[in-house]
Amino acid sequence: MTDVEYPGAPLSPTDRSTIRRGKQRAATERGALYEVLDAGLLCHLGVSTDSGPLVLPTCYGRDGDTLYLHGSTGAASLRSLAAGGPACVTVTHLDGVVYARSVFHHSANYRSAVIQGSAVVLTDDTERLHGLRVMTENLAPGSWEESRPPTARELAATIVLAMDLHEASVKVRTGPPVDDDEDVAAGEHWAGVLPLSQVWGAPQPCPLLPSDTVVPERVSQR
Amino acid sequence: MTDVEYPGAPLSPTDRSTIRRGKQRAATERGALYEVLDAGLLCHLGVSTDSGPLVLPTCYGRDGDTLYLHGSTGAASLRSLAAGGPACVTVTHLDGVVYARSVFHHSANYRSAVIQGSAVVLTDDTERLHGLRVMTENLAPGSWEESRPPTARELAATIVLAMDLHEASVKVRTGPPVDDDEDVAAGEHWAGVLPLSQVWGAPQPCPLLPSDTVVPERVSQR
Repeated sequence: MTDVEYPGAPLSPTDRSTIRRGKQRAATERGALYEVLDAGLLCHLGVSTDSGPLVLPTCYGRDGDTLYLHGSTGAASLRSLAAGGPACVTVTHLDGVVYARSVFHHSANYRSAVIQGSAVVLTDDTERLHGLRVMTENLAPGSWEESRPPTARELAATIVLAMDLHEASVKVRTGPPVDDDEDVAAGEHWAGVLPLSQVWGAPQPCPLLPSDTVVPERVSQR
Repeated sequence: MTDVEYPGAPLSPTDRSTIRRGKQRAATERGALYEVLDAGLLCHLGVSTDSGPLVLPTCYGRDGDTLYLHGSTGAASLRSLAAGGPACVTVTHLDGVVYARSVFHHSANYRSAVIQGSAVVLTDDTERLHGLRVMTENLAPGSWEESRPPTARELAATIVLAMDLHEASVKVRTGPPVDDDEDVAAGEHWAGVLPLSQVWGAPQPCPLLPSDTVVPERVSQR
């Protein structure tokens, strides 16, 4: 495992955001949190419900130390979140499978950020539009300027939430497997990393577009 | 959006696993659940803690209608799960960004499975080994046979958990954006899908391997 250094202020974790297992994988700089969040498109949002935790994938965006989330006003899964209930947002990048000499030391290379806290429903229209813009730009850079803006009716159907990034922890694993000395010495089994990455495919224009429509650079150059 | 059909028995969802939002994206066949789970390497496990939900990425494996999870006996995050507390396991594949003509209809193409229930700590050694084998084969096919097997000490340090797949829901979104008729007619904005996929890179052998070690096919051909 290699050390990872990040610029920025410490994450200042609270007791519940302090990583106890695998401390050597815990990044302590705020820049590490930003890097993990800004590299992601989907988070996994955990909320409490009467029948236990519920974890759903959803889009998000970050601006400074604020994470924005959104959803339909009718979404039952947002009820607890909108009421200020405790929540957890996790973003994970899987960077590779770690093949060890032993079954036990098999692992994964990854970067993950875990944010705990509660969200606030935004009511100010300027703030709501800002949050939606940040989320749109994270999912589809350039789309905020290049698409038809939200109407009043669309805005009314949307809850926009903000969550503070104060309580967060980041874990990063990189590098080759860490095997027991005896297994390394025995030299009987292959070991190494099979990297995994996400790649964009060729743009698929909507069939309803006029046939001479050019794919914009914000899409073709992504 | 295109319809997706899957073979297999119905998911038989309970009340809390019944999808209310975006019903047209809900798959109802058990085969859809298997496909989403078997295509994934990491899940997001949500557990309840005294200070709210906690969502952590972790490896898993599926055999029939059982999902296996594991962790260190010292992991605080597994305490509630091991005690039979309510849990949620979510696996998501992001297949593309959906660029719509309007900001509002931007979306993502994805496949996700959400499993709710509670886990059982396995105590029988045959079952524990089976669970570990299923998980290892999901993360690194072939590694169970080709690596040094777990020792008694390694097994003692590992909790193996089984979770029933009875209560599950699957959502799938595919296809082009669904825009408002007026926006389609206006023809002013590009719309389409930018596909996203995961690809394996070239194997990176552990630097401590003898230099003449050949990369096994289970890795090089993955």
